[in-house]
Amino acid sequence: MSIRVGIVGISGFGGGEALRLIAGHPSFELVYAAGEGSAGSRLAERFPGVPARLADVVIERWDPASLPPLDVLFASLPTGTSAEALARVPPEVKIVDIGGDHRYVDGWAYGLADIWPDRIAGRTRVANPGCFPAATLTALAPLLADGLIEPGNIVIDAKTGISGAGRGGADSRFGYAESNENLVPYGLLRHVHMPEIAETIERLSVGSAAGLVFTPHLVPMTRGLLVTVYARGRATTDRCLDAARRFYAARPFVRVTDRPPQTKWATGSNLAFVSYAADPERNLVIAMGVVDNLGKGAAGQAVQNANLICGLPETAGLDGAPVWP
Amino acid sequence: MSIRVGIVGISGFGGGEALRLIAGHPSFELVYAAGEGSAGSRLAERFPGVPARLADVVIERWDPASLPPLDVLFASLPTGTSAEALARVPPEVKIVDIGGDHRYVDGWAYGLADIWPDRIAGRTRVANPGCFPAATLTALAPLLADGLIEPGNIVIDAKTGISGAGRGGADSRFGYAESNENLVPYGLLRHVHMPEIAETIERLSVGSAAGLVFTPHLVPMTRGLLVTVYARGRATTDRCLDAARRFYAARPFVRVTDRPPQTKWATGSNLAFVSYAADPERNLVIAMGVVDNLGKGAAGQAVQNANLICGLPETAGLDGAPVWP
Amino acid sequence: MSIRVGIVGISGFGGGEALRLIAGHPSFELVYAAGEGSAGSRLAERFPGVPARLADVVIERWDPASLPPLDVLFASLPTGTSAEALARVPPEVKIVDIGGDHRYVDGWAYGLADIWPDRIAGRTRVANPGCFPAATLTALAPLLADGLIEPGNIVIDAKTGISGAGRGGADSRFGYAESNENLVPYGLLRHVHMPEIAETIERLSVGSAAGLVFTPHLVPMTRGLLVTVYARGRATTDRCLDAARRFYAARPFVRVTDRPPQTKWATGSNLAFVSYAADPERNLVIAMGVVDNLGKGAAGQAVQNANLICGLPETAGLDGAPVWP
Amino acid sequence: MSIRVGIVGISGFGGGEALRLIAGHPSFELVYAAGEGSAGSRLAERFPGVPARLADVVIERWDPASLPPLDVLFASLPTGTSAEALARVPPEVKIVDIGGDHRYVDGWAYGLADIWPDRIAGRTRVANPGCFPAATLTALAPLLADGLIEPGNIVIDAKTGISGAGRGGADSRFGYAESNENLVPYGLLRHVHMPEIAETIERLSVGSAAGLVFTPHLVPMTRGLLVTVYARGRATTDRCLDAARRFYAARPFVRVTDRPPQTKWATGSNLAFVSYAADPERNLVIAMGVVDNLGKGAAGQAVQNANLICGLPETAGLDGAPVWP
Repeated sequence: MSIRVGIVGISGFGGGEALRLIAGHPSFELVYAAGEGSAGSRLAERFPGVPARLADVVIERWDPASLPPLDVLFASLPTGTSAEALARVPPEVKIVDIGGDHRYVDGWAYGLADIWPDRIAGRTRVANPGCFPAATLTALAPLLADGLIEPGNIVIDAKTGISGAGRGGADSRFGYAESNENLVPYGLLRHVHMPEIAETIERLSVGSAAGLVFTPHLVPMTRGLLVTVYARGRATTDRCLDAARRFYAARPFVRVTDRPPQTKWATGSNLAFVSYAADPERNLVIAMGVVDNLGKGAAGQAVQNANLICGLPETAGLDGAPVWP
Repeated sequence: MSIRVGIVGISGFGGGEALRLIAGHPSFELVYAAGEGSAGSRLAERFPGVPARLADVVIERWDPASLPPLDVLFASLPTGTSAEALARVPPEVKIVDIGGDHRYVDGWAYGLADIWPDRIAGRTRVANPGCFPAATLTALAPLLADGLIEPGNIVIDAKTGISGAGRGGADSRFGYAESNENLVPYGLLRHVHMPEIAETIERLSVGSAAGLVFTPHLVPMTRGLLVTVYARGRATTDRCLDAARRFYAARPFVRVTDRPPQTKWATGSNLAFVSYAADPERNLVIAMGVVDNLGKGAAGQAVQNANLICGLPETAGLDGAPVWP
Repeated sequence: MSIRVGIVGISGFGGGEALRLIAGHPSFELVYAAGEGSAGSRLAERFPGVPARLADVVIERWDPASLPPLDVLFASLPTGTSAEALARVPPEVKIVDIGGDHRYVDGWAYGLADIWPDRIAGRTRVANPGCFPAATLTALAPLLADGLIEPGNIVIDAKTGISGAGRGGADSRFGYAESNENLVPYGLLRHVHMPEIAETIERLSVGSAAGLVFTPHLVPMTRGLLVTVYARGRATTDRCLDAARRFYAARPFVRVTDRPPQTKWATGSNLAFVSYAADPERNLVIAMGVVDNLGKGAAGQAVQNANLICGLPETAGLDGAPVWP
Repeated sequence: MSIRVGIVGISGFGGGEALRLIAGHPSFELVYAAGEGSAGSRLAERFPGVPARLADVVIERWDPASLPPLDVLFASLPTGTSAEALARVPPEVKIVDIGGDHRYVDGWAYGLADIWPDRIAGRTRVANPGCFPAATLTALAPLLADGLIEPGNIVIDAKTGISGAGRGGADSRFGYAESNENLVPYGLLRHVHMPEIAETIERLSVGSAAGLVFTPHLVPMTRGLLVTVYARGRATTDRCLDAARRFYAARPFVRVTDRPPQTKWATGSNLAFVSYAADPERNLVIAMGVVDNLGKGAAGQAVQNANLICGLPETAGLDGAPVWP
């Protein structure tokens, strides 16, 4: 039995990646697509490689009052717009919000699927974590759970491919010639992901996440996200790796490696890679987390959450190996 | 019932892409992997994102006398080495050779699957076309079949991402700093793909392919291949597009577009995109063909050929949408 | 004695490259900069690495009625806008137009400096060639001059880095994620550079340039331009190389190589590289030309032309070696 | 009067960049070039864009017993090899070692030219700082000098383009397809640059550099280096910026910006950009430093040091603006 699925925000990179995953999903059937910049176009005009059976789906202008019958709606809208956009969606339609407006909002589950699948299963409203939080929390959760690091004074130095900055609109900051061969720090000291990361750290451990530092950087590549996290703790590298292997032993998407993870290991997949390098004498634990920012950082995680709330196998439609090289 | 599959040459990019596709194939089961540079390693050491069930497969040193029971063997070996390597494979093992040594060799079907599926179905030895021929012949076949262009004096200006040059070995020509931000013509006037292209042109039409010109270029990107083909003919653009739409109407992997095709439309998939721009007054037809050089240019086409020779649905394991952006 | 120089269109890539070259020029002094998108900013805000002595130059809004005293004005404006913008510049101000509006217009010298320096010296209005014509004509001129190729039915397959497409404005076609790892043909059959190329071919030879074909492609790199030109002729490779070496023996910026030229050989410089591969039996000559599209394809050539019209050594300010890797 | 200059290690990227800068230097004349991989070639074969007057210089095999008369030798050799290679260079030949073997070795000045020019002027043996130390120490020096940060427990998260990893030799780790679109942490906890950074921090301040953490990452671009440094201190952002402006007021190559620096601002130049973002309430100062890893990270700094030890203007041959975009 097909689950009827819709995507709003299909013009953006997150929406496009959701389309790719839904198109290959054994149980989901795309019956609705909406987007601002592309309303009126056929899917094949925007996505020339879309499977033939979806080629003639017409992209609608978003109107929550005029939705067709839907089981699940994926929303990938610019920050600040999804609260309003989704408020009038009928309650019987399940929603996975890839955007940031509903994280830790009452009534919405926080969709950190690899860590809290039980809090997501059976829910009807899921807020997908941000891309940086996805990578960071996946790397830190085992250490916090085992008390191997302090929750406070964590420094996150984050790096993302430029699709993580969004499709923008008219934004020459992300023009090719401006961005290519260039590394750029941004959002220092006050990035929008910080409260979400701090909140989750505190829920994963005992103590305060005060002193959290988060510095993102744009990297000249399309996809890929790595966080290098500096935390205080007197664990050894092996102890951290062991904690992570136990923590994720039954979780299908998290790989623990003893080598530093490379972003391209995850590209095109819903995998996360974590690793650790610790120096107990210096009270230092370095945790590294890698995801595809459009995969587990956005649409991959969203599909995983949709599988959970629909009672499907968690890996449905998500078992494609990464695309390498 | 699982079809037992092996890959020899798994260290190369073609072998690695074959692994990805086979891992996601509903009927194939990988039971054997061999490679020179990686013999002794586990698959997960070479391919950290490989599905968990294949993680502990050990890469063997190639020895055709010691193969496990296999139904299909994919060979992705350096040019000049597969004739010898495959000569001693037992005849009951079907072989798809991604390398170039068996193209138009007696006893081997030429695996141009989108054009000659009937010549491949039921065979036991298939020579996969080269990447440039795959794109070129896919673009030209409808025009040759309809007599819209002359088979002679065709000029092919070809462009490929650098994974098309192979994993080499110790080759600083393809070192990152040397290759990045650089466009390089190579193999002028005598590229190894020319005989294959000329032979196929003649089989697809009436007349001689004399005067064929083929100039490849390395492009600073990982995947992607485009050929811009200049041919003589007095057809209109619409007539060419129409011929291609009819020619490929029943073929699942070829998309005909009226816009010039972009290489990224095919990335990560087994799709080919073709388009045309003609000027009858100047006796000029420009044909464009795009593939992912590791997809339809290599491993994707190989899996499609394996589906054909195994009597499986042609699209089995190959219906993943392209990865974009 | 300093020559007082101005740049209009300083927000664009051509204008920015002109700024870099002028800043390092022994005789030019920048006294005026104007641009639309950046009017009111200081140069250092737009170009953080600009030499300190120019940091506080304020970018003006263009007004030909309010120019300070200037000796030479460089114009790098979008196609279609420079005719109007420059019409009211006082006649005593020499102009080099990097844009396309004045090529082969009465009263303007066509600034193909490596080939016709004598037609440029002493003039007051120079139209800089387009980037593709610069590379193409540099490669073809020796062959046309020696009658080694026919001027008709020349096929030019051109490739450019994305800075060649201009800084656009709000144009997501050139957004990083859309353009990266992507090769795109465009402007088929009717690109704006064709008349200029055809006109110049006819001036360099005897006969008609009828049948000219020109196909540009966008390449995922910032700078760099290569043309692969297919012409009819019964010359040998060596004869072509010899003709080029003689033709350019006294010209400082054109390098003749027997290897196919790579775009990165020219990056950051005003050099052009040309090479040839011919097959007399097939009546085929392949000519290759490489420039930095912002160098000899735009600002480098403009400065060379300015040197010529000001009676300065041609290489003044242009002898920097290419930046490699 | 020309200063006779030689380069040993010309096949590497540092040596090649030294060649470019020396070729454009008003006082240096290249009279000797040596390299392992390219011995016997002419410079123009290795560097097609080299100025014509240097084209026929033959690259020699390194033999310190057979040097021509030289005033200054630039050495850019793999780590571990320059101590031996340079030990037998006659004492009257001044040496600037771009490699790491002589940093903080007796008899060699540490060439941190923007900070300690007086310790370099008049010396005959200079050890060029490493690329990461160059960026890090330039950013930190003003803060250490003013006591705005503690010298201990500094965390340096470093990012470099791939030319920073060296030309290697046969190293597929840096093959294009492996490295492109990929971000990779390496050298965790024990990178070779750490002692040099710690030593210099202690010389620039009062106190111990204990607890230094340094994590480099390879970024998919050719050139460019950024360090994001997390230090303890109760300064405000403005106080840090002010300290840096005063510290570098008379130094020609360091630019202090209030925006986060982008690596491309420095590409092709000897500039360094520094900026700061501080949160006194959290006892946190973030310092950012950007250089071109081949510029101020290697050959640019080497030429600056050579200017100092030869008594030339410090900016001689180094005033070229960055190449942008």
